[in-house]
Amino acid sequence: MEYRVGVIGGGQLARMMIPAAVNLGIDLKVLAENAGSSAALAATEVGDYLDLETVMAFAQTVDVITFDHEHVPQAILHALVEAGHDVRPGPDALLYAQDKILMREKLEQLGVPVPVWAAVSNADELASFIADNGGHAVVKTPRGGYDGKGVRVVSHADEVADWFVALAEDGNGGALLAEERVDFSRELAQMVARRPSGDMQLWPVVESVQRDGVCAEVIAPAPRSAGRVADVAADIATAIAEGVGVTGVFAVELFETTDERLLVNELAMRPHNTGHWSIDGSTTSQFEQHLRAVLDLPLGATGCRDTWSVMVNVLGGPVEGTLADRYVAAFADQPTVKFHNYGKAPRPGRKVGHVTAGGDDLDQVVFEARAAAAFFQN
Amino acid sequence: MEYRVGVIGGGQLARMMIPAAVNLGIDLKVLAENAGSSAALAATEVGDYLDLETVMAFAQTVDVITFDHEHVPQAILHALVEAGHDVRPGPDALLYAQDKILMREKLEQLGVPVPVWAAVSNADELASFIADNGGHAVVKTPRGGYDGKGVRVVSHADEVADWFVALAEDGNGGALLAEERVDFSRELAQMVARRPSGDMQLWPVVESVQRDGVCAEVIAPAPRSAGRVADVAADIATAIAEGVGVTGVFAVELFETTDERLLVNELAMRPHNTGHWSIDGSTTSQFEQHLRAVLDLPLGATGCRDTWSVMVNVLGGPVEGTLADRYVAAFADQPTVKFHNYGKAPRPGRKVGHVTAGGDDLDQVVFEARAAAAFFQN
Repeated sequence: MEYRVGVIGGGQLARMMIPAAVNLGIDLKVLAENAGSSAALAATEVGDYLDLETVMAFAQTVDVITFDHEHVPQAILHALVEAGHDVRPGPDALLYAQDKILMREKLEQLGVPVPVWAAVSNADELASFIADNGGHAVVKTPRGGYDGKGVRVVSHADEVADWFVALAEDGNGGALLAEERVDFSRELAQMVARRPSGDMQLWPVVESVQRDGVCAEVIAPAPRSAGRVADVAADIATAIAEGVGVTGVFAVELFETTDERLLVNELAMRPHNTGHWSIDGSTTSQFEQHLRAVLDLPLGATGCRDTWSVMVNVLGGPVEGTLADRYVAAFADQPTVKFHNYGKAPRPGRKVGHVTAGGDDLDQVVFEARAAAAFFQN
Repeated sequence: MEYRVGVIGGGQLARMMIPAAVNLGIDLKVLAENAGSSAALAATEVGDYLDLETVMAFAQTVDVITFDHEHVPQAILHALVEAGHDVRPGPDALLYAQDKILMREKLEQLGVPVPVWAAVSNADELASFIADNGGHAVVKTPRGGYDGKGVRVVSHADEVADWFVALAEDGNGGALLAEERVDFSRELAQMVARRPSGDMQLWPVVESVQRDGVCAEVIAPAPRSAGRVADVAADIATAIAEGVGVTGVFAVELFETTDERLLVNELAMRPHNTGHWSIDGSTTSQFEQHLRAVLDLPLGATGCRDTWSVMVNVLGGPVEGTLADRYVAAFADQPTVKFHNYGKAPRPGRKVGHVTAGGDDLDQVVFEARAAAAFFQN
């Protein structure tokens, strides 16, 4: 037999599955939005993931369907399952990544700690939530937001008046998600892989440093996390994985509050930016593990290869030219750092690559990773 | 700018360049002998590397030409250089990998220790060599041999009578290479990367365990090599790299004699089986380093990621079915081992994959690697 995995979406997550697929001799096919996608090196078909026929035809060519993103509509996901295709993660799990209000309801059912929240359908409900929560709210559009898009911190309901107008026009009786502004000391992330059989493997919990709502750096493992923090993060992620029935790799983004609680912030039902360090820093990368998990193969070990791994995103990239233009200088300066170029044109704020450093001295590792990434900015 | 590397030959060495090319955003093109080659995932053109026009057209599409094997004829290599293409390694360096007699002459010129040898044109010369060297000789065809093919250990000249007949029929006035049967305790290999500018990086010397003339296992670093053995191996490889003007990654295969000398056995002007451990065991893999070197980019660090790395080849593969058929059992048994499947159909003696284990306890690491590889045999 041969294993054939189909990935819907041709972004950097699909791209980073290619090395793992090559190593394991897995036939990787990508359904990309357009030609010249980040994952274009894999056998790539260009087509619209919103088109049922396109997706169904693509599914015929592989053994299992998985995803570079969470935007495939539920109707298409269910049609795939009904036609007998293995879809991992499945529509029920993806639903919670697609709708933040359903996700909050599910997490509450599972007894997982989350920020205080409410689904608010109009300005009055939001005003009332703000009044009850110290004069602030974090308001999120339940669908389609990512990397800080669709998130506003407000102290007056009229700061999201446009979103309420859009809701009313949508006519589906939807609501916005309002959450307390959590007083957190830092953000953490727990990555997990789960097979259809239920077997799981967890990487160590990591610290994620955000700038402008976008992941900028990840430190693995999270400093000062040994013991209680690691255990609680693992318990939360395990409860969600089992409760939601995730298959494949998924990420739980967490707040560590100033009073030392962990609260779930977001879920991602796929390999995630906070797991990129694992390519160079763990025995099994999140991308290899995702392929193993969706194929229902035994999972790999998730130990750290270095005392500390630090991943720094290359956001935007050079103002002029390409990332490759900076290789001579960057490689000469940081011979131990691992460079990852997503093959995307530089554009302000866009994730175009990342670098990972590893070693025993955290200050030194942070310095090396930042120094390496800095070559690709400005 | 973007970097574009063209690889002539579509075997597993080209295949294992793909992950490094994906990570670094290097555009990798392969000129393969046939469709469905081991490197087929890369942008692959099928064509004959013996055909000048095919190779010249391929070279137009890339910035630098490099190789999966050493069989491209000198006339074609020189034509590429004359047309202004960067060919790395160049024809002069490749000549020594293509002709073992020229290689021995060059090594002697460089003052590098080699086994006692002679170019023998007929049975009388060989008989005389055998008489002078303890009644034995290792006889090699100067061109085209690999993995134990084209090598015979003889005590009578008539044991290679067929090769002398072939030489005579060839009519080019060639000779066979006769070497003393070296009394060696083990075989070592020293991998080096060299840029056109002359900068070099060496991995630690490794021990290579051969079975039936084929590399079966590699231990990195070679046990009991710290100090003198490592220094001498590095000096030999450095002298050859500079003396021959190699660019890219190359391997020096060495005998460690029972009286503790190192003698050069063979050269390979390309990534090599004795360097596969570096994918999982070194900060920079030989494949990433080869791409850096042929593009004249600064080289990466070559430190070990584990105290010990052990690579075991999967030779032949399963008698029935594919390597992938054994994944469930192998992955479950060895969760820390890294598996590499070359996407080639199993066939007796064929290198179809390898596994690498790493850790602090050499006995345990050897056990894990052998146990993992054993799942793919029989």
